[in-house]
Amino acid sequence: MNKLVLLTLAGTLAGAAPAAAQTTEKLDAAALAKIRDEGLNRSKVMETAFYLTDVNGPRLANSDGLKRANEWTKAQLTKFGLANANIEAWGDFGRGWDIEKSYVAMTAPYYHALVGIPKAWTPSTPGLVRKQIVVVKANTEADLAKYKGQLRDKIVVMSVAASLKPATEGAIRRYSDEDLKKLAAPVPPPPPGTAVAQDGRKILAALRAAMTDMLVSEGAAGVLSARGGIYGTFNTSNGAPYAADAKPALPEIETAPEDQLRLIRLVEAGVPVEVEMETKTRFQTQDLKGYNVVAEIPGTDKKLKSEVVMLGGHLDSWHAATGATDNAAGCAVMMEAVRILKATGLKPRRTIRIALWGEEEEGLYGSRGYVKNHFADPATMQLKPEHEKLAAYFNLDNGAGKIRGIYAQGNETAAPIFQQWLAPFADLGASTVTLRNTGSTDHIAFDAVGMPGFQFIQDGLDYFPTTHHTNQDTYDRLIADDLKQASVVVASFVYDAAMRDQKLPRKPLPAPAKPQ
Amino acid sequence: MNKLVLLTLAGTLAGAAPAAAQTTEKLDAAALAKIRDEGLNRSKVMETAFYLTDVNGPRLANSDGLKRANEWTKAQLTKFGLANANIEAWGDFGRGWDIEKSYVAMTAPYYHALVGIPKAWTPSTPGLVRKQIVVVKANTEADLAKYKGQLRDKIVVMSVAASLKPATEGAIRRYSDEDLKKLAAPVPPPPPGTAVAQDGRKILAALRAAMTDMLVSEGAAGVLSARGGIYGTFNTSNGAPYAADAKPALPEIETAPEDQLRLIRLVEAGVPVEVEMETKTRFQTQDLKGYNVVAEIPGTDKKLKSEVVMLGGHLDSWHAATGATDNAAGCAVMMEAVRILKATGLKPRRTIRIALWGEEEEGLYGSRGYVKNHFADPATMQLKPEHEKLAAYFNLDNGAGKIRGIYAQGNETAAPIFQQWLAPFADLGASTVTLRNTGSTDHIAFDAVGMPGFQFIQDGLDYFPTTHHTNQDTYDRLIADDLKQASVVVASFVYDAAMRDQKLPRKPLPAPAKPQ
Repeated sequence: MNKLVLLTLAGTLAGAAPAAAQTTEKLDAAALAKIRDEGLNRSKVMETAFYLTDVNGPRLANSDGLKRANEWTKAQLTKFGLANANIEAWGDFGRGWDIEKSYVAMTAPYYHALVGIPKAWTPSTPGLVRKQIVVVKANTEADLAKYKGQLRDKIVVMSVAASLKPATEGAIRRYSDEDLKKLAAPVPPPPPGTAVAQDGRKILAALRAAMTDMLVSEGAAGVLSARGGIYGTFNTSNGAPYAADAKPALPEIETAPEDQLRLIRLVEAGVPVEVEMETKTRFQTQDLKGYNVVAEIPGTDKKLKSEVVMLGGHLDSWHAATGATDNAAGCAVMMEAVRILKATGLKPRRTIRIALWGEEEEGLYGSRGYVKNHFADPATMQLKPEHEKLAAYFNLDNGAGKIRGIYAQGNETAAPIFQQWLAPFADLGASTVTLRNTGSTDHIAFDAVGMPGFQFIQDGLDYFPTTHHTNQDTYDRLIADDLKQASVVVASFVYDAAMRDQKLPRKPLPAPAKPQ
Repeated sequence: MNKLVLLTLAGTLAGAAPAAAQTTEKLDAAALAKIRDEGLNRSKVMETAFYLTDVNGPRLANSDGLKRANEWTKAQLTKFGLANANIEAWGDFGRGWDIEKSYVAMTAPYYHALVGIPKAWTPSTPGLVRKQIVVVKANTEADLAKYKGQLRDKIVVMSVAASLKPATEGAIRRYSDEDLKKLAAPVPPPPPGTAVAQDGRKILAALRAAMTDMLVSEGAAGVLSARGGIYGTFNTSNGAPYAADAKPALPEIETAPEDQLRLIRLVEAGVPVEVEMETKTRFQTQDLKGYNVVAEIPGTDKKLKSEVVMLGGHLDSWHAATGATDNAAGCAVMMEAVRILKATGLKPRRTIRIALWGEEEEGLYGSRGYVKNHFADPATMQLKPEHEKLAAYFNLDNGAGKIRGIYAQGNETAAPIFQQWLAPFADLGASTVTLRNTGSTDHIAFDAVGMPGFQFIQDGLDYFPTTHHTNQDTYDRLIADDLKQASVVVASFVYDAAMRDQKLPRKPLPAPAKPQ
């Protein structure tokens, strides 16, 4: 899931509650029973998740890890019996980047190895560097200017909030019945201040860019920064741009807040602090393109097989862990769903196409590129012939929890259909349809050009704040029963959409984002 | 707190519930008000804790960090106005050991920096070594023998439990009223199987020793092991003996379970895994003695000033963090208690002596040595003259939570006195007296020779399983309000004991542990 999720959810307006069912869905109970049996009793979802995470490793946009995962998923989907597996370029992304060494420690007043990892797309240090640190506290460019002349050959420690809030809640959370009831109801308008928060982010980004330029021009040796986390879990993201022509940045390590706070407290108490760091990072500039992996189960109905039901999730991740909950889990479930459909021998009328997206974390680039190449450019809303052929797109990218329902994304005619499709899964905990939108992941690319794109509601488990974009998003976080359940629900939805006489109903086409 | 705590608690028999008060205690309300005012409104406890943790660093037995802390606490107690501050040898301990470099990463099938730290008293690697790994699963020496011939020049990864239990509870816990009621009641006898668990530990220790010998003789390059923890928190302890004449061991790093499990899963799936590690550790063999820090507030009553009220806690810690909750918190509270007593200008009748113990984690060595040197040898129960002069010893070492009461350690005549001493602190949450014993820390050294030694009941906060002996036992875990409260309660207890007409009543003298 892309990092904008919380703001987007807060800024979303839900429509009215789903109207009563308009049509009666013809469900194939025997087929659904086969899907459930295969998915619950002969699941391969944990094996798939293991290969996606442990074996392929971190999957940062255009990294070696993502390339490995692209190759592996293409081969594995073919092994599952899918046709037309392909690693398809969606357009230009930017530089690849991988870590070859990551080491940081405090060496004075005593030795302490810090927990940390280079921020993405930051350059290497010139070998092992050992320097005094300077703590920089700056909320404005004027604050920043005060440090001029003090940073040469120093390791800059960016200040953070003064203390950590003790963890009073368990990491694992599930939706209660009450939570789901609230989720199914329309949301109130966003509270005043949401727009301000967005402005705050822009100001911060501008400050951050100014800071990088200044640190480089002042000749600082490196940067240590921290954003969030507790007890050795910490957030991570990029510390420099990935564009081929990006301005130079400094070697930078994101640390666990406990370590960062210790450095800051020592400096504030007047204790001289020295840090050594060694990062070796490798940029790849031969291929700046980004890719998605696609594969198909061809439809069997002469009239309908030119129509497509898509399912997918993003395969890329951040780099400090193996992106297990964000979003190997979603990909493993989607791969398992198509494996189930092949293993059961069911014959879908429409073509089913799985897509594992690249470069989602930087802005849904993989899915947006694919949608633009195949369906429509949201800027112009010029529709390509494939646009009318898409029956539905289903996405999974809200962690590793089981499915509790689906976001109907304001589509009032689809909602009662989903309600009926979910009915067989009430015993597995999936029964909620909300008209609310959810954002920050790849179904948005489809929704943006008026196609029926949806994301499922999932139990959060430890997604926020523990695993999402942290160094602890690993295979150990996955719970087999949750992923099996999700695979069965997704496979059934995809099958229902592939068998239905009509494609899923659509919302009215949006206006072009940039009218000509 | 020493690592045996859980077994000891489980194996403890409580006596009957405290009888009704036998005597009426004369409490000096004005003095207690002064103590409370100083301790709650002009506290220095967090400043003291900061110096103990962040500034002095990890304080492993006989390490540089512990030496720094000994010097600092001696100086600081003198600054607080205490007399006779002294760093007093308690006897022979073994080698000092400090870390100068700690680095470990997986380098194949892809690069991943592991979270880990050398186990205490393990030797250095010969620079950076990069080796293939072998996973060793052995529950018996016969299991172990199967690996002969496979370990030369390999990094050995010790197997661990197959998966991590998701964290469903928050890290921070406090005693509820119900919990305290249960704690005040006698405990049932230990469940069958407790003795077996003790046997299991011995078997494991013997296996571990055999394993070390074999790994050394087989020529393994190093060891990675993991015991417990989740989300980047991990346990740590020693991996080799500290005795001056200890047999050689291998360089060994204790890792976060997530990292260890990833290595194991990859090997089990047939993926070749390579790890690089570099540890630089420094042994100190010039001074093999262990030390305690002591200082006094001399008594003012001619008749009683030769009698002593002691308070203390262990200053040493494990090495992966700064031992904030185990036990800088206890030491900071004890130091704050004597600071408060000096700052208020109160004139205790008896002498008050603070002791900050060394080498507790390896077996309560500092306090046991002190007791043997000053009071009595539990082996013979030959009493020294100081034995009868000790009015009481109060210990703090159950984390960083506020005080909720006191363990009367089976002393039925002391219990009603404590009940009255606690009465003024009901509003601060401290009101429970239990006759139960608690073990695994330094009051046991006093109790073992028939002197009145007690430990307070504290809220657990995140002590188990998050901070106790982990890499996350840092200053960030301390909550100022808890430590202020504890300081006030301790200062008051010490003052009450110093002013009371009689010393605290004692239990009957125990028999010699080794009768002559």
